[in-house]
Amino acid sequence: MLPPHEVKDMALAVKGRELIELAERNMQALVTYRSRLADKPLTGKRIAVNLHVTKETAVLIKTLVAAGAEIAMTGCNAFSTQDEIAAALVDEGCSVFATHGCSNEQFHKYIAKVVDFKPHILIDDGCDLTVAVHAKGGETLANVIGGCEQTTSGVIRLRNMARDGALKFPMIATNDNKTKALVDNYYGTGQSCLDGIMRATTFFIAGKTVVCVGYGWCGKGIAMRAKGLGAQVVVTETHPFAALQAAYDGFRVMPMDEAAKVGDMFITATGNKHAISVEQIQTMKGGAVLSNAGQFVYEIDVDGLNKVKTASREVRPNMEEITLPSGRSVYLLGGGNLLNLTCAEGHPSEVMATSFLGQMKAVEHVFGHAGKLPVDCINLPEELDDEIAALQLAAMGVKYDTMTPEQEAYMKSWKEGHDL
Amino acid sequence: MLPPHEVKDMALAVKGRELIELAERNMQALVTYRSRLADKPLTGKRIAVNLHVTKETAVLIKTLVAAGAEIAMTGCNAFSTQDEIAAALVDEGCSVFATHGCSNEQFHKYIAKVVDFKPHILIDDGCDLTVAVHAKGGETLANVIGGCEQTTSGVIRLRNMARDGALKFPMIATNDNKTKALVDNYYGTGQSCLDGIMRATTFFIAGKTVVCVGYGWCGKGIAMRAKGLGAQVVVTETHPFAALQAAYDGFRVMPMDEAAKVGDMFITATGNKHAISVEQIQTMKGGAVLSNAGQFVYEIDVDGLNKVKTASREVRPNMEEITLPSGRSVYLLGGGNLLNLTCAEGHPSEVMATSFLGQMKAVEHVFGHAGKLPVDCINLPEELDDEIAALQLAAMGVKYDTMTPEQEAYMKSWKEGHDL
Amino acid sequence: MLPPHEVKDMALAVKGRELIELAERNMQALVTYRSRLADKPLTGKRIAVNLHVTKETAVLIKTLVAAGAEIAMTGCNAFSTQDEIAAALVDEGCSVFATHGCSNEQFHKYIAKVVDFKPHILIDDGCDLTVAVHAKGGETLANVIGGCEQTTSGVIRLRNMARDGALKFPMIATNDNKTKALVDNYYGTGQSCLDGIMRATTFFIAGKTVVCVGYGWCGKGIAMRAKGLGAQVVVTETHPFAALQAAYDGFRVMPMDEAAKVGDMFITATGNKHAISVEQIQTMKGGAVLSNAGQFVYEIDVDGLNKVKTASREVRPNMEEITLPSGRSVYLLGGGNLLNLTCAEGHPSEVMATSFLGQMKAVEHVFGHAGKLPVDCINLPEELDDEIAALQLAAMGVKYDTMTPEQEAYMKSWKEGHDL
Amino acid sequence: MLPPHEVKDMALAVKGRELIELAERNMQALVTYRSRLADKPLTGKRIAVNLHVTKETAVLIKTLVAAGAEIAMTGCNAFSTQDEIAAALVDEGCSVFATHGCSNEQFHKYIAKVVDFKPHILIDDGCDLTVAVHAKGGETLANVIGGCEQTTSGVIRLRNMARDGALKFPMIATNDNKTKALVDNYYGTGQSCLDGIMRATTFFIAGKTVVCVGYGWCGKGIAMRAKGLGAQVVVTETHPFAALQAAYDGFRVMPMDEAAKVGDMFITATGNKHAISVEQIQTMKGGAVLSNAGQFVYEIDVDGLNKVKTASREVRPNMEEITLPSGRSVYLLGGGNLLNLTCAEGHPSEVMATSFLGQMKAVEHVFGHAGKLPVDCINLPEELDDEIAALQLAAMGVKYDTMTPEQEAYMKSWKEGHDL
Repeated sequence: MLPPHEVKDMALAVKGRELIELAERNMQALVTYRSRLADKPLTGKRIAVNLHVTKETAVLIKTLVAAGAEIAMTGCNAFSTQDEIAAALVDEGCSVFATHGCSNEQFHKYIAKVVDFKPHILIDDGCDLTVAVHAKGGETLANVIGGCEQTTSGVIRLRNMARDGALKFPMIATNDNKTKALVDNYYGTGQSCLDGIMRATTFFIAGKTVVCVGYGWCGKGIAMRAKGLGAQVVVTETHPFAALQAAYDGFRVMPMDEAAKVGDMFITATGNKHAISVEQIQTMKGGAVLSNAGQFVYEIDVDGLNKVKTASREVRPNMEEITLPSGRSVYLLGGGNLLNLTCAEGHPSEVMATSFLGQMKAVEHVFGHAGKLPVDCINLPEELDDEIAALQLAAMGVKYDTMTPEQEAYMKSWKEGHDL
Repeated sequence: MLPPHEVKDMALAVKGRELIELAERNMQALVTYRSRLADKPLTGKRIAVNLHVTKETAVLIKTLVAAGAEIAMTGCNAFSTQDEIAAALVDEGCSVFATHGCSNEQFHKYIAKVVDFKPHILIDDGCDLTVAVHAKGGETLANVIGGCEQTTSGVIRLRNMARDGALKFPMIATNDNKTKALVDNYYGTGQSCLDGIMRATTFFIAGKTVVCVGYGWCGKGIAMRAKGLGAQVVVTETHPFAALQAAYDGFRVMPMDEAAKVGDMFITATGNKHAISVEQIQTMKGGAVLSNAGQFVYEIDVDGLNKVKTASREVRPNMEEITLPSGRSVYLLGGGNLLNLTCAEGHPSEVMATSFLGQMKAVEHVFGHAGKLPVDCINLPEELDDEIAALQLAAMGVKYDTMTPEQEAYMKSWKEGHDL
Repeated sequence: MLPPHEVKDMALAVKGRELIELAERNMQALVTYRSRLADKPLTGKRIAVNLHVTKETAVLIKTLVAAGAEIAMTGCNAFSTQDEIAAALVDEGCSVFATHGCSNEQFHKYIAKVVDFKPHILIDDGCDLTVAVHAKGGETLANVIGGCEQTTSGVIRLRNMARDGALKFPMIATNDNKTKALVDNYYGTGQSCLDGIMRATTFFIAGKTVVCVGYGWCGKGIAMRAKGLGAQVVVTETHPFAALQAAYDGFRVMPMDEAAKVGDMFITATGNKHAISVEQIQTMKGGAVLSNAGQFVYEIDVDGLNKVKTASREVRPNMEEITLPSGRSVYLLGGGNLLNLTCAEGHPSEVMATSFLGQMKAVEHVFGHAGKLPVDCINLPEELDDEIAALQLAAMGVKYDTMTPEQEAYMKSWKEGHDL
Repeated sequence: MLPPHEVKDMALAVKGRELIELAERNMQALVTYRSRLADKPLTGKRIAVNLHVTKETAVLIKTLVAAGAEIAMTGCNAFSTQDEIAAALVDEGCSVFATHGCSNEQFHKYIAKVVDFKPHILIDDGCDLTVAVHAKGGETLANVIGGCEQTTSGVIRLRNMARDGALKFPMIATNDNKTKALVDNYYGTGQSCLDGIMRATTFFIAGKTVVCVGYGWCGKGIAMRAKGLGAQVVVTETHPFAALQAAYDGFRVMPMDEAAKVGDMFITATGNKHAISVEQIQTMKGGAVLSNAGQFVYEIDVDGLNKVKTASREVRPNMEEITLPSGRSVYLLGGGNLLNLTCAEGHPSEVMATSFLGQMKAVEHVFGHAGKLPVDCINLPEELDDEIAALQLAAMGVKYDTMTPEQEAYMKSWKEGHDL
């Protein structure tokens, strides 16, 4: 018998299973790890999940189920929900509440359903589930051991909650895992955002001036791949250290007011709001492309843009031509929503293997240290992070060295120096 | 009247001053900072310095002197000492004990002289001065407020001292400054090591297989520049996270035993000993080039190599052809000593501006918090590190953004999320 | 009244016009050129066209029509035909015979219709139209002034026809235009093929071993972009000069038998047949991706593969999983057909502006020199080629220098040398 | 007994031989070729050589001698002459007239000596020898079968001579060999010029704006390596095709008047004169670095600069600080002479193996077709050029494929097409 759920169509489960199988082929690190969980260490644990409902997430969910956990799930972004996957996961015994393109109202209803599941552990993406559990309070809140959060935007919210004393259980910032930052934010975002730009526009990248708004891990990955596709890259930043790195990476760094005038394509990756203002948009060249790689839609002032526009039309899927009062028009991709998920298909499966190993490790760590972790937004222990890297290397077939005992000793000594 | 000193020839001071002037032109970040020290905040402080005696170091020393400090100095590497600079610094009123090519015995004598200066603060490179002060003990040791250390190798030694309870005063790991790691270890080492390879050998880089032994900041910089010059890069590592990054950066990762057989050029940057063993050297192709980017000579087993060699000769300055029992020969650059300093001229001046701003900031921080810092190997506060980045950007003429108050508020909030 | 035609549905013309408008926005070089043709220099000329029926081709066709020409057209690849565009071009007054996914039999019927148009000039892509006109012979053949050919594969056929004395009118190898080779084969193919790989598979490129089979202009573009996306690139070649360039570009060069064993993804760009044999496919790793960037399907031995396979299924659109007798399976993209057109959307519009300016210039040149050009496969005069570059630069807003009279004189002199 | 000669000191021959041996190690393609010349095909031929007198040239000369030729030689650039090599070549039986730093007057005397040798064949670099032989005329001129020219600058002069009917024997433009353009002009110049910049200045490249003046093979190589070392590259050009390539390679293209204002370093590679005018130099930033990668000193208007300067001094070897009337100063490297030879050591030996195989092939071709080649500046037959690539690949140990008979047949057919 199927668990409680709300999905588009259970008949889609067949196609969903096929897609999950394809994902598993490229997520060997996670699949291998799953094979080690035969003793079902998460038996009896209820886990609430708020993640993008994609074939890769399904591989994580199946791994949690294999470990004995019970799952209630919703999708953190209405447009990333794949209805086939939602159906297939219900078939796997999960309570899934997610439909592609659901309204804001439905989204909150789904979150509420998941909260009502009375979870022990949360897996969150953007912090909306965590905030909802805190809002609910009472026994539901008290029941939570802890959880983990997957995005920069969510971690910023968690740290602010912790600072304000609002956070009531430990949350592991899996977003800040070294392996996640490197593989997902840097390489994954780099590839999938340029993929999104090309699919949405089919525009030529070579010779274009691509403005990377923000030069954190995501922005660096985007800049690297834009350069790799032949673009001239311009970087804008508010933080001096990131700006310095961009300059020494050979990119032009300038204030956004100047970049607005020279750019052909803009990609925001700041985790902040209004990284591109509507005033700046109005100084752009006709035909400029606007897109956002960040979690939330606010990085570009889309509301402001909608207020000033004189016309708009969809010229291709996910590509809206917006005419400005000047008569010039710009293209907005995916409505300003997360570029790689709206205009492409999110990260490659292989990338998500690394990210989701972080969630697995975090869930096990929270569960194994119930009541012992500080009530704060904390990091995954580095040795667990390194294990993820080792699992991924093994899946890739990459061999590397181990230190000799003599080298181990040397690295621990301090007497050797100028002359040995 | 000149202070106590031991340098090659005071007549070289004229040339030394010219060189320092050239360095200052490219170290505007530090020179600008110097101009703000008119109130001489380090008056009465005795600072012992163990650094490479180069024109760039001289710009730091002049800045410390401008801040009111008294200086005793030696050179941390006999072959990097520029006698012109040593002379010019004596002229600036510093007690310099350093001669190019001095013996190991002389080196220890010079260190002793500097220790006898009874310093309040140490600026160290490789930790030899710090170890010597601890060995001296007594009032000399008690007199020290703290200091800073500039290299990975030195920081490893300091952390091990701290772990063993051997460290007796706070040492700031300026090596670990974000700005230092980025600018000096990554970009600086990258450029100067390839410069060293080209000067020593004049070999063609394009099409060569360059083996980067170690993929920390230095190794990554070297790999990036070797690739930028057309090499096929192979990486060896003992740490899974670094190995994963190398693999995703598009490099072949393999154990050193395999890399030894395919490489044309080898550059070690591990901070460890015997990263290349004499057994591995004997499996290399004839004509292979061996070099070390690390602080200490032990990264390549040069002693072992000297034991097995059947002949050797200097074919070019800093390029020794060493014949192996197999009849094949390999080239050892700079005797296995620090590649960029022995075969080229160390880091570009601009790089050292950033590194030495770290020392300035560390010295001021230690001095300003005398007795209040933990007796440990600690980091420079991040806000001081960011100030260095800002100073360097200003020197480069790079402009960047500042957050609007609305953005500052957003970054501190946690209630905004799925729907604003 | 509409001209004779065979297209899917004339109602699609509305959408077709919208797409053509989007293309024109990115093909300003060609649109600007069109505005100069008010005197209709091609009035009364019948032009037969065998090109991919895409929005970009439509911009060329509209330019020919603006110049006064009458057009009959078919699509050179059944799967690249966009039915909306076919309909819109009929609306522009062209005789279009092209339907998406038409059978081989239909394709030949369409070619025959176009041949029956009794063209003065041919614009060909793959040489099938030219061969058909020669096969038809008689008055139809006699009526042809000349034409141009757009692909490497077609030019090879033309040169062989010319060598055998079979070619009966001059054909300009617009494929060999400097501007076409550079912009279309190199940058265009590079971007669009990687776009195709990512859309078809969503696989991660970073860290993958991508085998570029062939290192001509197309292969070099593909290799550059694969590297730009983080791949390890391996090149196979049969020509020593191309192999040498690949090696010095920092890529591993090896025979295909070896490359088959190490590659994760394979992209053929040789213009030859069976660049990857079925025997080599059977030595590949499970999960290997096979794709072809060349004009014809024969570069990979797909027929051979179909003979040995034990199973196959479409796992995603354009991505077929083929199980080999060994039990391992490989993925074939787009059935081995032209990767960028089957799995992505062909070249970006901007690229095609350059290519199609070549056709415009060639048509005008053939028309203007009727009976005076050698009956051979010949090149476009270099000064016309340079005009294309200048038009494209103007469209991009790029300014460059002109030589001073003094410099012009210097470049023509030979007496100045060691001392001026 | 030694032949007639004028060199610095015959005692230097010992060191010269050692250096030549080192070069031979990296020029295996040429050394292997030498081993095939046991039948001395050039016996009795007198060859006049005007090339840079370096260890690599010596390997060519030894190969010519091994083939039976008699040699008279001078150095085409006074500052590139290595006196050790000159001495060693006299020891090999060659008439060498070359001393490092010789005056313009001596240079012409040396050229005259070589002309008086009554050569059958000329090997020229910059065309000065060829012009001198034409100026001499008479029997000397009549005696010449033909020759070859190594540089872009020289080929421009030759083509102009041919156009004016002034050229009296066939000259092979070995400069235009595909292998030479690729390996020497592109990769070789790229590496050695950046090597020269770093040796002369020790300036940091990362983050600098490097202006590549000219985007031919040399300019492209320089731009590629400047980018590879972290620079922002700006390109100036007078030719639209080259400008278009630079733009699509992701570089900013702008007129020199604008580039002058934004550049930190300038490298000319145009083959033209006054590519940087003194007016433009006066608009540059203080501290700008000026250098020339071209054959002749005129690319930068050094004479004009010397006229306006208010002061100058050598701050490092090959680095002159020149103060402008504005009070700002710029750095001129190597006096504006050929950067890689004055500030570094010219091309790597391996590069010269390819270039000099071109000379060997050209000399043999001219000799084998005496009286049959057109009296013009002509190209080396492409199959000989491909042999050079094959020899170089063999020396590098690179394996590649050969076409199957089926593939050979396919490449010659024209009937196969849409359906096989």
